[in-house]
Amino acid sequence: MNSREEVTHSKFHRKALQVKEAQSRIIEYAKVLDTEEVPLYQSPGRYLAEPVYAPHPFPAFNRSGMDGYALIAADTEVMNEGDLIWLDIVDNIPCGAVPAVDIRRGTAARIMTGAQVPQGADTVVMLEATESREVDGLLQVGIRKLHKAGRNVTPIGFELREGELVLPAGRMIKAGDIAVLAAFGIPFVKVIRRPKVGIFATGTELLEVHEPLVPGKIRNSNSPMLEALVRESGGDPVMLGAIVDDIELARSKVQMALESYDLVITTGGVSVGDYDIMGDLIRENSGDMLFNKVTMRPGSVTTAAVRGGTLLLALSGNPGACFVGFHLFARPVILQMQGAVQPFLPEWTAVLGAEYSKVNNYTRFVRSRLEIHEGRLYAYPVSIDESSVMVTIKDSDCLIVVPPEERGLSAGDSVKVLKLPGEIRGLESMAGS
Amino acid sequence: MNSREEVTHSKFHRKALQVKEAQSRIIEYAKVLDTEEVPLYQSPGRYLAEPVYAPHPFPAFNRSGMDGYALIAADTEVMNEGDLIWLDIVDNIPCGAVPAVDIRRGTAARIMTGAQVPQGADTVVMLEATESREVDGLLQVGIRKLHKAGRNVTPIGFELREGELVLPAGRMIKAGDIAVLAAFGIPFVKVIRRPKVGIFATGTELLEVHEPLVPGKIRNSNSPMLEALVRESGGDPVMLGAIVDDIELARSKVQMALESYDLVITTGGVSVGDYDIMGDLIRENSGDMLFNKVTMRPGSVTTAAVRGGTLLLALSGNPGACFVGFHLFARPVILQMQGAVQPFLPEWTAVLGAEYSKVNNYTRFVRSRLEIHEGRLYAYPVSIDESSVMVTIKDSDCLIVVPPEERGLSAGDSVKVLKLPGEIRGLESMAGS
Repeated sequence: MNSREEVTHSKFHRKALQVKEAQSRIIEYAKVLDTEEVPLYQSPGRYLAEPVYAPHPFPAFNRSGMDGYALIAADTEVMNEGDLIWLDIVDNIPCGAVPAVDIRRGTAARIMTGAQVPQGADTVVMLEATESREVDGLLQVGIRKLHKAGRNVTPIGFELREGELVLPAGRMIKAGDIAVLAAFGIPFVKVIRRPKVGIFATGTELLEVHEPLVPGKIRNSNSPMLEALVRESGGDPVMLGAIVDDIELARSKVQMALESYDLVITTGGVSVGDYDIMGDLIRENSGDMLFNKVTMRPGSVTTAAVRGGTLLLALSGNPGACFVGFHLFARPVILQMQGAVQPFLPEWTAVLGAEYSKVNNYTRFVRSRLEIHEGRLYAYPVSIDESSVMVTIKDSDCLIVVPPEERGLSAGDSVKVLKLPGEIRGLESMAGS
Repeated sequence: MNSREEVTHSKFHRKALQVKEAQSRIIEYAKVLDTEEVPLYQSPGRYLAEPVYAPHPFPAFNRSGMDGYALIAADTEVMNEGDLIWLDIVDNIPCGAVPAVDIRRGTAARIMTGAQVPQGADTVVMLEATESREVDGLLQVGIRKLHKAGRNVTPIGFELREGELVLPAGRMIKAGDIAVLAAFGIPFVKVIRRPKVGIFATGTELLEVHEPLVPGKIRNSNSPMLEALVRESGGDPVMLGAIVDDIELARSKVQMALESYDLVITTGGVSVGDYDIMGDLIRENSGDMLFNKVTMRPGSVTTAAVRGGTLLLALSGNPGACFVGFHLFARPVILQMQGAVQPFLPEWTAVLGAEYSKVNNYTRFVRSRLEIHEGRLYAYPVSIDESSVMVTIKDSDCLIVVPPEERGLSAGDSVKVLKLPGEIRGLESMAGS
């Protein structure tokens, strides 16, 4: 069966794809975007456009790990227990200074933590383990114990050798990476630009957030939620409002959005009812359609099309389905466009914390809450996980993947979970320090 | 021993506090800041200043969960197997509309998913399960099966009752919370303002990120790292540069910063060496000092003082110690100032993935990497975790807490870990979906 045949359908009969197949159909249209340079301080959360190699060894010089004296370990080898040997102090090396003289047998240099160990010296003895005296105007340091070469000296290139791979392309930059980039003198970082994502909702029932509630209507909560999710995924959301159920209006809005943005996400209007205008709109030009049914709950009506190379993801208007659809389809596209190494949600194994009896002929993605007890990961389905339910989204930090089965799942069963982005919320209240 | 006695010390003798004691000494100076209102779209990542209660039930009306017909279930009770009953269609209710008439026995209304169920009706029958006909110009819907009251109707207040607590104060706002705030008509959100955090480094050896490397010097990587960490914690970092080891300069910088910001973080200059100016500066006015030694590795020299009610946290200049010190001391202060419910790092139990033989008389906070295999959490110490080492910070997503002991830890031992903020990085590459 070729893909043209697969998309043949009537309004009530759609060819359903597996989630993985639907994902692979869209991900091929998620091309990595252009590179741009951003100042270092703006780079956290962005994805590296190219690998970073160490432009010099790190540390770039033999570095003292102690406040004390740099000397030649062999000078301490002659000692017997209780002996004290005296070395002439020939230099004083603060941090940031260049040693003035090389260290030869019988001499030492006062040195600070982090300062460059002078040529010749192979060890640093901590200040607290030394004595000092003045003999004929000459300062000397006294050492009581035998010391090994290399002690308290971090050799050049100990952390990274010149040319070594430091950070791979496609890595999301975090604070620890900032330290590395700063240390290597990279004030501007090459990252992939953020995808511009147009977002609009359809539905005559939708009010704006600031509008007072009127009978029969609801406020548009999906668009602001999608805006936050797009931003959380590194995208640059563009809010295009909500439109009434009018196919002409929707057609021009979709057309404009597809010409202006890297990705367009809509919510609502994809069911099989009379006013499901996104569905109608995509059915008009079915050659562009990638899928309009997925074997999943919630969100089986999730629809995708491509026009002029730009993806249109039409998510369900049911808040729970919209949320799940975003994470399974929109987020991977947004991450892939930024060159992320791994655009899909991480897949973990967990212990099911409570019975889950709902079964279906489609795979269910159950909004759930993670907990860790004694090193084991537990997943608890939220209290109500119906597609239409909005309020439990906020309590979800993973999706339990329930395969189609005849029987439900019992507490203690091993389950596959998809980790949602962000901290594991249930754990915040369990914290100590 | 009173606190004045505890802070008595010489340059080489400091009174060391346990980490928890040091944390509790500073956290009492971390007062929750003022409230401000931000537009909904700017609120993710911010902390709620006050609890949000549902201003109205949600949903606000009995909502249809299907495209179909709203009717009275009792009308279908009379049927025998194979019977078909016909009801007069008296209304057509799209989403967002108000039903025009109540439903009485023998009548039904065409209704859309999400629309308001009319008075009288107690169930919605899906369109696909109905037939229709016209009799004398009157439209009728045919129902074949018995239906139960309540089916496909989400009752008013099903998700939340009016006045119910929706989001507690101190909660960090995420995308799911945005959906709730939008649904309840809250276009501006009361959050706690971001703490302004002054950051500067001390050290004559420090170069700016854009400066070419010269012998004996290093680029200041701690300040940009701290800037990223402060921002990640919700704070508003103010970069005050690096200063040379000059106590006059440091004194005026500290004074200015303490008068201008909610918190001041410095890095470097807290060891016992000649040029440890932050230590000297704080010792000058020891009445202000909260502690200058903590029984921890790395970062035992971490120092804290309070002046005019404002905290000064003087972290070690060693990158590893600076990173650990930030998470144990600075982050909790920044979160507490924002009213976070739980300002400290979450504490998990994990299985040690590899032997860790280093022991110490102080508690060690070992930079480590988390993995989850078959529902069990494993923690692997990074390859080199010395205090001075910078490059392994980027690979750490937790700190293993190694208590002071005579013997090392073996792979398989149960260990306590402090989860660092952000995704568990090691898992990104293991993901599927």
